[in-house]
Amino acid sequence: MSIQYILEIVGTFAFAISGALAVKDQKHQDWFGASFTAFISSIGGGTLRDVLLGSYPLVWISDITIIHAIILGILATFIFYKFLLRLRKTLFLFDTFGIALFTLVGTEKALNLGVRPEIAVIMGVFTATMGGVIRDVMTNEIPIIYRKEVYATACFTGACVYLILDSIGVERNVTFILSAIVIILLRILAVRNQWSVPRFFR
Amino acid sequence: MSIQYILEIVGTFAFAISGALAVKDQKHQDWFGASFTAFISSIGGGTLRDVLLGSYPLVWISDITIIHAIILGILATFIFYKFLLRLRKTLFLFDTFGIALFTLVGTEKALNLGVRPEIAVIMGVFTATMGGVIRDVMTNEIPIIYRKEVYATACFTGACVYLILDSIGVERNVTFILSAIVIILLRILAVRNQWSVPRFFR
Amino acid sequence: MSIQYILEIVGTFAFAISGALAVKDQKHQDWFGASFTAFISSIGGGTLRDVLLGSYPLVWISDITIIHAIILGILATFIFYKFLLRLRKTLFLFDTFGIALFTLVGTEKALNLGVRPEIAVIMGVFTATMGGVIRDVMTNEIPIIYRKEVYATACFTGACVYLILDSIGVERNVTFILSAIVIILLRILAVRNQWSVPRFFR
Repeated sequence: MSIQYILEIVGTFAFAISGALAVKDQKHQDWFGASFTAFISSIGGGTLRDVLLGSYPLVWISDITIIHAIILGILATFIFYKFLLRLRKTLFLFDTFGIALFTLVGTEKALNLGVRPEIAVIMGVFTATMGGVIRDVMTNEIPIIYRKEVYATACFTGACVYLILDSIGVERNVTFILSAIVIILLRILAVRNQWSVPRFFR
Repeated sequence: MSIQYILEIVGTFAFAISGALAVKDQKHQDWFGASFTAFISSIGGGTLRDVLLGSYPLVWISDITIIHAIILGILATFIFYKFLLRLRKTLFLFDTFGIALFTLVGTEKALNLGVRPEIAVIMGVFTATMGGVIRDVMTNEIPIIYRKEVYATACFTGACVYLILDSIGVERNVTFILSAIVIILLRILAVRNQWSVPRFFR
Repeated sequence: MSIQYILEIVGTFAFAISGALAVKDQKHQDWFGASFTAFISSIGGGTLRDVLLGSYPLVWISDITIIHAIILGILATFIFYKFLLRLRKTLFLFDTFGIALFTLVGTEKALNLGVRPEIAVIMGVFTATMGGVIRDVMTNEIPIIYRKEVYATACFTGACVYLILDSIGVERNVTFILSAIVIILLRILAVRNQWSVPRFFR
């Protein structure tokens, strides 16, 4: 539990950095815009999940550590952004760990609230991706899930693997780690080999 | 009740098809994007209504049939899309039945939760139109309600007719059917005769 | 209390006018689009705040006066818009009073619900600005908070001043008025002197 909590805070911190860096290419990139974008990117997915599930209070409202992790992420981006931009590969890994973690945390939380497996998968994918979607919609970009890359599909696959392992009785920590590895590997291989999801209309 | 439930499922199925077809003209039209768009289009309006009313659990979270109807709609679009695109007129009718049904179901649900008539009309229009609005915002289109067509205005008129008939004591099923006819006729006549809502600024 | 309620209704009325006027430059500016935009602009911020806080029923659902104030604002815009467009300075003042008021009302409401000061500031800023953000996202504009102007930052500063004065025991009405003056002055001075928030990336 404690390890997972630390990972969640680290994931939030990483998402805040990638959110703040996302305004780099915008014309207007003042302090407020960068902070707001970092905030939305970090908490958007989990917030949507909890609002849809009616699970109150929202995590970042009851646990102030999350807000502090975001503020730290914003400050870190401000101070080290030249260094961070050179670290794109590291950031990609951070983001990939982040989405793996957020997918499984979201799936588990939904399951614990007693919803059906199909809903738990949706909540897992939403937790990982909707922060980025809201950020992209607000900055008038095509949302990340509509870009060609395998992104949400990796989360979707990992959430399904989690449910399958869980349903056949594999121990929870093993299930969590194996599903996370699926998401992380799938995303890394997809980017390396430029995999894309099959077209819907042939 | 049973007939209305079947109609709701059919409406959800029809909205999923029109949602999946909506990515046809997008550059990126992979399986994930199409499914996501279909999902958002179908459940967006009712979800917004229930979140605003604080009515939990959300319908599609407690009744898995809705998710299954959406999945069926996505599969049907994938298999039959060439056929479906030739059927544009039939699809228009499906969509029109869908918005009529969703408007009145939304209005009724709000009334049953004890809100004022003005609020019930807003909830009816939101149920029918906000799924499409969210879909359009996410794909960077001008939202459907801002296009010149009579669309939301037909829903608005139908919801008002429902309230008037209901307040003068007309039987519920008669009220429902008459209001639905108003929405369907208004939309068909509007498209046929290219009616548009009066401009706000002269 | 009574004065604050009247101010809130006036603020809602003013936000509805600025929302309806916002469609002036859109291609499609029919009655429905203008009314919808006015509605979203007025209630969007407070709605988001209450949904995030899980505070039900939403204010505009339980108090119909708010809907009536919005309808009045739409009608006033329709009748007097030529006059209103000449009054741009007055409208700017209205909008500035509106965001000051909404910021502090939102901050206070969140505090009363027992959240931490950091969360209360976020809720205050959201109350004042997110209606405009949702409006801008829906009409495909760059959201107001990303434009160069000092806007949300004024709200943020005012909410912080409120919390500081409140924490050192200043009387509530004095705190409210002083914080409002900070927001109003900051915004007026910023527009007059073309102040902008420091860039995030140097």
